[in-house]
Amino acid sequence: MVPKRNVYLKMKSLEEARRIVLEAFGDRTPDAEMVPTPEAVGRVLAEPVAARLSSPHFHAAAMDGIAVRATDTFGAHPAKPKTLTVGESAIFVNTGHVMPVGTDAVIMIENVQEHEAGRVVIEAPAFPWQNVRKMGEDIVATEMLFARRHRVTPYCVGALLAAGHFQVKVLRKPWLVIQPTGSELVDWRRQGEFQLLPGQAIESNAYVLGKLAEAAGARCERLELLADDLDAIAGAVQAALEKGADAVLIVGGSSAGSEDYARAVIERLGEILVHGVTMMPGKPTIVGRVESTPVFGMPGYPVSNIIAFEQLVEPLLARMLGQPPARRERVDVYPTRKIPSKLGLEEFVRVKIGQVGDRLVATTLPRGAGQITSITEADGIIRIPSQLEGVAEGEPVAAELLKPLAAIGRTIVVVGSHDNTLDLLADELRAQGADLSLSSSHVGSLGGLMAVKRGVCHVAGTHLLDERAGTYNLADIKKYLPDVTVRLVHLVMRDQGLMVPAGNPKGIRGLEDLRREDVRLINRQGGSGTRILLDFRLRHLGIDPVQVAGYTNEEFTHMAVAAAVISGAADVGLGIYAAARALGLDFIPVVTEQYDLVIPGAYFDSDPIQTMLRVIRSEAFKRRVNALGGYHTERTGEILL
Amino acid sequence: MVPKRNVYLKMKSLEEARRIVLEAFGDRTPDAEMVPTPEAVGRVLAEPVAARLSSPHFHAAAMDGIAVRATDTFGAHPAKPKTLTVGESAIFVNTGHVMPVGTDAVIMIENVQEHEAGRVVIEAPAFPWQNVRKMGEDIVATEMLFARRHRVTPYCVGALLAAGHFQVKVLRKPWLVIQPTGSELVDWRRQGEFQLLPGQAIESNAYVLGKLAEAAGARCERLELLADDLDAIAGAVQAALEKGADAVLIVGGSSAGSEDYARAVIERLGEILVHGVTMMPGKPTIVGRVESTPVFGMPGYPVSNIIAFEQLVEPLLARMLGQPPARRERVDVYPTRKIPSKLGLEEFVRVKIGQVGDRLVATTLPRGAGQITSITEADGIIRIPSQLEGVAEGEPVAAELLKPLAAIGRTIVVVGSHDNTLDLLADELRAQGADLSLSSSHVGSLGGLMAVKRGVCHVAGTHLLDERAGTYNLADIKKYLPDVTVRLVHLVMRDQGLMVPAGNPKGIRGLEDLRREDVRLINRQGGSGTRILLDFRLRHLGIDPVQVAGYTNEEFTHMAVAAAVISGAADVGLGIYAAARALGLDFIPVVTEQYDLVIPGAYFDSDPIQTMLRVIRSEAFKRRVNALGGYHTERTGEILL
Repeated sequence: MVPKRNVYLKMKSLEEARRIVLEAFGDRTPDAEMVPTPEAVGRVLAEPVAARLSSPHFHAAAMDGIAVRATDTFGAHPAKPKTLTVGESAIFVNTGHVMPVGTDAVIMIENVQEHEAGRVVIEAPAFPWQNVRKMGEDIVATEMLFARRHRVTPYCVGALLAAGHFQVKVLRKPWLVIQPTGSELVDWRRQGEFQLLPGQAIESNAYVLGKLAEAAGARCERLELLADDLDAIAGAVQAALEKGADAVLIVGGSSAGSEDYARAVIERLGEILVHGVTMMPGKPTIVGRVESTPVFGMPGYPVSNIIAFEQLVEPLLARMLGQPPARRERVDVYPTRKIPSKLGLEEFVRVKIGQVGDRLVATTLPRGAGQITSITEADGIIRIPSQLEGVAEGEPVAAELLKPLAAIGRTIVVVGSHDNTLDLLADELRAQGADLSLSSSHVGSLGGLMAVKRGVCHVAGTHLLDERAGTYNLADIKKYLPDVTVRLVHLVMRDQGLMVPAGNPKGIRGLEDLRREDVRLINRQGGSGTRILLDFRLRHLGIDPVQVAGYTNEEFTHMAVAAAVISGAADVGLGIYAAARALGLDFIPVVTEQYDLVIPGAYFDSDPIQTMLRVIRSEAFKRRVNALGGYHTERTGEILL
Repeated sequence: MVPKRNVYLKMKSLEEARRIVLEAFGDRTPDAEMVPTPEAVGRVLAEPVAARLSSPHFHAAAMDGIAVRATDTFGAHPAKPKTLTVGESAIFVNTGHVMPVGTDAVIMIENVQEHEAGRVVIEAPAFPWQNVRKMGEDIVATEMLFARRHRVTPYCVGALLAAGHFQVKVLRKPWLVIQPTGSELVDWRRQGEFQLLPGQAIESNAYVLGKLAEAAGARCERLELLADDLDAIAGAVQAALEKGADAVLIVGGSSAGSEDYARAVIERLGEILVHGVTMMPGKPTIVGRVESTPVFGMPGYPVSNIIAFEQLVEPLLARMLGQPPARRERVDVYPTRKIPSKLGLEEFVRVKIGQVGDRLVATTLPRGAGQITSITEADGIIRIPSQLEGVAEGEPVAAELLKPLAAIGRTIVVVGSHDNTLDLLADELRAQGADLSLSSSHVGSLGGLMAVKRGVCHVAGTHLLDERAGTYNLADIKKYLPDVTVRLVHLVMRDQGLMVPAGNPKGIRGLEDLRREDVRLINRQGGSGTRILLDFRLRHLGIDPVQVAGYTNEEFTHMAVAAAVISGAADVGLGIYAAARALGLDFIPVVTEQYDLVIPGAYFDSDPIQTMLRVIRSEAFKRRVNALGGYHTERTGEILL
């Protein structure tokens, strides 16, 4: 029987959903509590704070020197110095001392000469209140220091203590209870060294939510993971509500599938306000209400979970705490290619951003809601409104930044063919103390050259064989970049070969075996150096691609090819030794090829690129490359062009 | 005897001092420790992290529906549907399920019709891998997830857990020991309800430093407050170093006075690298070294202390943790008046910033190093290099932001005469849920009109009496703002009077007594409404200002005048009842005057201003104003122009 499914209520736009959340729950201001002032940093004042003490609360010397009555000094002049009597008309004071009764100015010690015991000489007059911090100069008792809802900073601690506030009344942190659900999930705390079974995954969303919510000012409790069981989940949510939770987040099961129980739980206890938001990721989000408390159904895909939290829960927390909604810095970026998007859904596209020349260029990351790395690697998010079908290449569009612009400015943008030594290089830059990041996008060797042509990268990784000359990269640079001045730096020689499951169950010995009907290939994408190499070899052997099973199945990285082989989705793939070794595959060498870096002349002499070259040439880097296996570094770092 | 003083070593520029700090101590990388992954947020990875598990680690259904072998579905069409057998050629799966052996695609449940028990019908083919999350699609085991020195975010927790990292190796937090010193200081924790004696102040710098250092990634220990005692301080520092502190901060006593011991402590234990930095605030900063550990002498003035930390200690902590130095967002702002600065000192000028029209305008706050409120109230800092004598009015200059630009955009900039009801208004805006701040600068009534003229404020507070007509504000608006369209809103009527010490020891009965030789006035600054009122009344009474003792001593606010009276610096001042009552002074009413708000027409209809007017007219606001005493709100909120 086709399983029974729920039906989405009419979906709401994000704006509408957020309005519903804020209207329903925005006035749930937490009550107040007293905390010691230094512990109040990051907290929100529950009431206005007026100073109890003035600061200073007396007239204080602001310099080391002598305190005087200014009128006693009038007329003093180098030609006609005045003599004052210590302890009477001149009293020695240090910075911070109380001004003695009757004095109203301080003459700096440097301008005082000792004449004889008990007498000092000055050569210039003091004006009234010079070098004196007057009572209340900084803070006047009874004046308002901070309005209510002010968020306490470390600086504020200084003002509050100085003003006599050693405890302050702050809003209690909203208490969020997070209930992870999912029969397929495993709690890492329950496990020692364990083998994850097929169909299982590590529960991580509830931890991510907890940390995001803490950063937004909430106190979080993560309940024990529950299986997909309506009664169990409803019971746990009910208990959390009875204990006084300010909001409950049910994580997982928020979609409309037969084993999705978040909606049923909320319907049992209260009512659904929103099910389904026209955004991507994050569509299967539920907003519910039980009595007056919000209960959210959070999507199980990690990026959906994050976006749903940031767009619907975080604004509610901010409102409860009387704070403006968090707003990220926005900058204009230039997409390196057109970004299509679905009409009717507001899309949150994660992008890498780099400062290339005078532009910030944005390269899209994978768009799947299940790919947490698409947000951990992102520098920013481009939001495409629901009424647009995407954004065009090369036209500026706003991006919300996830990293400071300064950090983005210190990122070397690498586009092109993927090689594991680029990850090593990124780490070795840090290991050698360079304040530089390396961001790499995998679009194949030709894609890299095109990125150079369009001026959207600092470096392109490439291993393009010129079949006639038997050389690498030079011919294609000449062909595709006739008008661009570029330099070419040799990175590594690497072994490419056939990756097959351990023990080589199908007895594959070489490319000839790709003709066999029982051998399914996993291929690399068109334009990649590996694909070009394969096509060259197949032609050489007289094998027509249509003879090769799986030829049209493509992956974008060596590791993805290796993963396809180990998972049984394919029997063989062409790739580098390191990928095979990493996943424990057998490796049949086919060729040793040359992997180089193309660097536009305009950036070659820049500090970041020269630092990168220094690291590439370091023994430490070469040692680590050789340790991977399948690499050769004899000429690493040589400038070829 | 003139007390013995130390001598500053040759002072260093900030840049030079920072270079010395980083060169001497920048390679002190803390060792590593393992922490549970969710607790690693904000910490820095000690080593690169490669994935242990793939995610997903199996081919997973990405939709609820039926898993099929794509080739079985080829040819299906609405006109020629295909029938599949449940459990054989079609297997029901939910999102996240393992793809059954032999299947390679999922058809969404919405596109599946039940034909008869055990059979389903499809009307379109599936292509291979549709609606399947392939093994390793997000994370491939062995691939590098994060390079060393990556700072862990909440997002990263998701990736790390999914990749099988339940503990991560992070750099230990640098351990900072903070030693507050100063015989004049009092520790608030030692006190219940207590009376601060003259000459005493609350120790707050060490708490501020602790919180700043924690935010910069350090672990802090604040030692017990010590008096100015060389042996005691040296002993405590020595003990902290022996326990393995990564850095010691001696707070206070860093200058060159006779009771300043920070330098002597460091010289006893090690050596001085820098004493005196050409910056303001922050000049009396010491950098010392004991064996290989940094010992800083931090200035005792609160703003100096903060600037010295942020400019010299924080960059060191960042370097130790392999992080880029913290960089604040910078924007161009327009100073509302010329900012003079001393040649040879790099100055950090705290400013309020407001978005007025299309410009960000910056108004300087008090520049004294002792004024903590100059930094708690600041929106940004303008740095004036040591080789400049200041910055000009109306020309753009860079400011480092202390608040997000978005928050600055929601600030109503009020310039002009000071009135306590403005603080109340700021708080009442928050109390009524408005996402607005109110920033007020006190430059007197005429100063407010000039600010309107120059287009650098949204609102000017003013109470300017036209002596001939007996009206307020209208005449001066006509005179000074002939070319600006403005609106005038009545805020309050308020009582002005003579403030005298409680009990009125000098028996002052009215303005006539200002003639008396034994009565010293504290005056308000020229251009303030109160000053104009006083001058008018004095003329009326035939009193010449030269007859008034103290006439030339000026303060900028009512509260400052009240503070001058209570401190004994003056016998009498003219001001508002609320100020007198707040400090327990007696009050002799002189006149009830009108305090209004001038609002440029261009901003009058804006949301923020209209929200402000709504709050001004609310009963809640009027009630609070009346509770202050000396105010009358019968016509509050009326539009006069």
